[in-house]
Amino acid sequence: MSKHNYKRKVYLQDKPRLEAKQQMLAHYEAKREIEWLDSASTLGRVLAEPVFAKGSMPHYHASAMDGIAVFAEDTFSAHEQSPIRLKRNKDFIYVDTGNEVPPPFDAVIMIEYVEEIDEDTIEIIDPAVPWQHIRPIGEDIVQEEMLFPQGHVVRPVDIGALLASRTVMVPVIKKPVVTVIPTGNELVAPDGSISTGQLVEFNGTVFTNYIHEWGGEPRLHPIVKDEPERIRAAILEAVTHSDMVVINAGSSAGSKDYTVHIMEELGEVFTHGVATRPGKPVIIGKIKETIVVGVPGYPVSAYLALEWFVRPLICEALQVSEPVRPKLKVKLGRRIVGTMGAEDFIRMNIGFVNGEYIANPLPRAAGVTMSLVRADGMLIIPPTSLGYEQGEYAEVELLKPLEQIKESIVFIGSHDLTIDLLSSQMKKVRRNTSIMSSHVGSLAGIMAIKKGEAHVAGIHLLDPETMEYNQSYIKRFLVDKEVVLYPFLKRKQGWLLPKGNPLDINSIKDIVPQQAQFVNRQKGAGTRILFDMLLKEEAISTEEIIGYGREMFSHLSVAAEVKGNHRAVGLGIYPAAKAMDLDFIPVADEHYDLLMTKAFFDSQQGKDLIHVIQSKEFLEKVEGIGGYSLEKNPEPIYFNALPNKF
Amino acid sequence: MSKHNYKRKVYLQDKPRLEAKQQMLAHYEAKREIEWLDSASTLGRVLAEPVFAKGSMPHYHASAMDGIAVFAEDTFSAHEQSPIRLKRNKDFIYVDTGNEVPPPFDAVIMIEYVEEIDEDTIEIIDPAVPWQHIRPIGEDIVQEEMLFPQGHVVRPVDIGALLASRTVMVPVIKKPVVTVIPTGNELVAPDGSISTGQLVEFNGTVFTNYIHEWGGEPRLHPIVKDEPERIRAAILEAVTHSDMVVINAGSSAGSKDYTVHIMEELGEVFTHGVATRPGKPVIIGKIKETIVVGVPGYPVSAYLALEWFVRPLICEALQVSEPVRPKLKVKLGRRIVGTMGAEDFIRMNIGFVNGEYIANPLPRAAGVTMSLVRADGMLIIPPTSLGYEQGEYAEVELLKPLEQIKESIVFIGSHDLTIDLLSSQMKKVRRNTSIMSSHVGSLAGIMAIKKGEAHVAGIHLLDPETMEYNQSYIKRFLVDKEVVLYPFLKRKQGWLLPKGNPLDINSIKDIVPQQAQFVNRQKGAGTRILFDMLLKEEAISTEEIIGYGREMFSHLSVAAEVKGNHRAVGLGIYPAAKAMDLDFIPVADEHYDLLMTKAFFDSQQGKDLIHVIQSKEFLEKVEGIGGYSLEKNPEPIYFNALPNKF
Repeated sequence: MSKHNYKRKVYLQDKPRLEAKQQMLAHYEAKREIEWLDSASTLGRVLAEPVFAKGSMPHYHASAMDGIAVFAEDTFSAHEQSPIRLKRNKDFIYVDTGNEVPPPFDAVIMIEYVEEIDEDTIEIIDPAVPWQHIRPIGEDIVQEEMLFPQGHVVRPVDIGALLASRTVMVPVIKKPVVTVIPTGNELVAPDGSISTGQLVEFNGTVFTNYIHEWGGEPRLHPIVKDEPERIRAAILEAVTHSDMVVINAGSSAGSKDYTVHIMEELGEVFTHGVATRPGKPVIIGKIKETIVVGVPGYPVSAYLALEWFVRPLICEALQVSEPVRPKLKVKLGRRIVGTMGAEDFIRMNIGFVNGEYIANPLPRAAGVTMSLVRADGMLIIPPTSLGYEQGEYAEVELLKPLEQIKESIVFIGSHDLTIDLLSSQMKKVRRNTSIMSSHVGSLAGIMAIKKGEAHVAGIHLLDPETMEYNQSYIKRFLVDKEVVLYPFLKRKQGWLLPKGNPLDINSIKDIVPQQAQFVNRQKGAGTRILFDMLLKEEAISTEEIIGYGREMFSHLSVAAEVKGNHRAVGLGIYPAAKAMDLDFIPVADEHYDLLMTKAFFDSQQGKDLIHVIQSKEFLEKVEGIGGYSLEKNPEPIYFNALPNKF
Repeated sequence: MSKHNYKRKVYLQDKPRLEAKQQMLAHYEAKREIEWLDSASTLGRVLAEPVFAKGSMPHYHASAMDGIAVFAEDTFSAHEQSPIRLKRNKDFIYVDTGNEVPPPFDAVIMIEYVEEIDEDTIEIIDPAVPWQHIRPIGEDIVQEEMLFPQGHVVRPVDIGALLASRTVMVPVIKKPVVTVIPTGNELVAPDGSISTGQLVEFNGTVFTNYIHEWGGEPRLHPIVKDEPERIRAAILEAVTHSDMVVINAGSSAGSKDYTVHIMEELGEVFTHGVATRPGKPVIIGKIKETIVVGVPGYPVSAYLALEWFVRPLICEALQVSEPVRPKLKVKLGRRIVGTMGAEDFIRMNIGFVNGEYIANPLPRAAGVTMSLVRADGMLIIPPTSLGYEQGEYAEVELLKPLEQIKESIVFIGSHDLTIDLLSSQMKKVRRNTSIMSSHVGSLAGIMAIKKGEAHVAGIHLLDPETMEYNQSYIKRFLVDKEVVLYPFLKRKQGWLLPKGNPLDINSIKDIVPQQAQFVNRQKGAGTRILFDMLLKEEAISTEEIIGYGREMFSHLSVAAEVKGNHRAVGLGIYPAAKAMDLDFIPVADEHYDLLMTKAFFDSQQGKDLIHVIQSKEFLEKVEGIGGYSLEKNPEPIYFNALPNKF
């Protein structure tokens, strides 16, 4: 371990997030620096001052039609019975839309109502009303009128108004420069090769993209090693050139968390620790007039902290309101426990099933980027709440458009690699439709259908008594539910083994003698039920199996663990072994079927899904993976219902 | 007039807009060209294929805590009464969060629970559970899992998942190249000087900004003269290098509308004329595999046509769904007439007054860019409808965020230049608040308050009998309404005259003898009431006044007309004369006051408004204009109500 220059014992505060934010904003003074830009280049920028039109549009009496310009009084006596003839360049001139109507002409007659007698003579039968079909000066924009107040964010149509009124340069608020400093000995740039113990530095790139989206000007500093001198130098340099500085990682209270000490040396620290889960280890301070925010290293905490503290600073710099996310009332599919005294930020999947929005939590660990990637909404549990019971209603902030959520197919159940392919193919047919899949195992899938939380469940449950798949479970658990079982595919289950099978595992009987480390699946997973059945057949106790208690939630996760450990063994499907380049010894050919509510099966979405499953393109893609055989035009099996008549 | 190469008589179709769109899409084949991009540069791009993780995250057994890595079995007997001591580098190693936990270690104990005895010895009192505080391989992302389906639009957090899994290059759909060709002899580039009869070319720049926002790659062609050969050459060149081509103006059936003839020569024309108002003269066709869309020259028509036809093409090229605007049910403040057989697109102002969303139409002319700039929503009247009655409810598409609409102050009434300043100052205090002002005259302002359609009305109504301003009108028209009159300012009304006063107008008596062309205001405007009073005093008939029937809706519009015509005279306020550099002869000092509903006056927004009005900054800005004197701390006058007690 490296020597410590700083004492280890630092305790984080649990300061309310909004208090920390208010305190930070009170210390922040927006510079409001102005830059003058060519109007054509102002899309998305914030006007620094009210903008007044430099000219009128139109700036002359412009014809609104193709026709002739006349002096209206000359035409007053025109009548069907007594047409009037006018001479070109004396009594009238030809004008096209947009042409000037010069004095003394004060009316335009549409060409449709003009009879051309010869090159220089026309005849009309209707009088013209003074100023008809002439656009007044400034009809669209009057010189000197205020086009936009300061603070307005420029849209394409606004650029039209600016240019039309010859307001060619406008003052906008300069984008605040936000320097992002990634720190950590374990970090390597995303393009380099990577060894054990190293992590790709990706938070910095994510930050710069968020900062860009929010209207700031991001600068990504090169990775800084966990050495106080280097961190100090980087901060000192950054604060002199930036409107705000973000330091990633080192914000907690560990042995290498130097940031807080350095910030205290160089300036002032207002906050170290906010009452949120995740995202607690945040540092906020000020060094040489610049706000510095230290955010945690775990990606979910990092992005949340950025949104809580850096976005408001950028909005303040730009003098615009913070955007507000739309909210949605959802029914909670599971009990969700909150932390007393802290806000919990729970990433949620939301599905629209049977006319209700049902939300379920995604993994809560701060390190799981995918929980944010996959989230449809965010449930914020206030510090005073212990959480929610299953079935309760709660309000979530939406992270995706509601149309998209409403169109999602909620797939809960066993994991299979083809489901992702299905999702991707489905998107070609219905662009807003994704398959939102949760890998919780076959039994949990059946339960989700029972509770009305899913459209589809992927299941592969072997009944040890009948040696049949799936049907007996449906009959047992879904007594009154109208469901359809769609026979989907057969797949090979078998032992997943490190390349070369170093422990020479050939059957379940070899696991205990070889002291192999088993990588298990979660309770209720079809694969676990299969493994338990195999153990029972051989009368092996679960306690004899090393690692029996270690649960993974997908075939690929098991395969990844097996790949990383030459003493490991797992049970899983062939494609997972193939994807991870593992050895594979087949154990069973199992039926993996799709259980659907009848309502979904009969819906247009359901029909489209079946259509995609039966398409040649999907078949080819599935066969390309290997280890699968898709059911060809299978007969759907109805439970508690009959097929619709056509 | 130039010679015509093409026959004049072309009649536009009235094809339903959606039919024209479907027909166009049926002729369009998306190229789906793929480009491989560095993941870090994919923000907002559309994935061309499903993307699978190249590596796991973490890709090794990583410690989730700062602490020590141990072999769990070694710790099973640890107990408060019988602590266990472990030796460094033999029984344990120190690990920080993110460090590898190498075999045979299989658990991490948090540093908080470790008693350091000496440099090489620690003591623990609790057993470790196998795999505690160790992140499984792939906890976040498992190698080979599908991260995103094709068609996914990349967000910042997605870039994190891509980089974390070392998926450094991803395939995205190439942006479709959209070439925009502005045509017209009257057009000049926005930066050049401008003469009468010339127009700044701004539609092209607006188009390129929209195309950019929608995900296309815009190319703006230089302005092309209205000459068939040049237009033909520009189109031919563009279609070979573009995925789609937009031609601006020349899309109608006038003498210089060559586009449709050229397109018919070079390829195929599917549509010429759609059943919409505005936006009818649209041409859609195909030349050499490229869809070409001709859009009208009037800006509102142009942008609508672009959205109707070019955005769907871009979405099709990118294989994403067309975005859907949120909708809102509003109460219509006026009768709105539709066109039988055509869709009407009416730009609407929407205000939230007395708990209801009230919408009023903006000017319908296709040339009024500001009607789109100012619009909060769009009312689309279907071809089968004749429109809506006042007070009916209708659904509008929102063009601004609802929060912003809800925060707007609806100001209806007489026009004054200080209201814009007030709006701008107000935005500093309340960033989401704008003052949405309609210039319809004082009387219409009072009526809007009466009908519950406005928060504030600006009024300056002289009662000829009492020679008092405003109060008698309020008493007459707002019998039961709880309102507050806030004395706002005095301003100078007078004759607006071309510089040098060429007709030597010094009083109302000079207008008729000099045959001056009067520029009038609309009925109900305080200025018109003043003018009528002056005429009455001198017993001059309105028929004697040239131009009496010509109505402008604001002081600036009157001033702009006066500026453009040396025979003109208008009545208006001094600041308008000053802004337009006109001569000014004072006629009256008038009271321009703010009439508010009591509910608004008592609201926080109302209080903030009064606060801004009374601020030193606002005072200075108003005095800077000249011709105004703001009331200093005036006493608000209550009608049908008493002040709230505090």
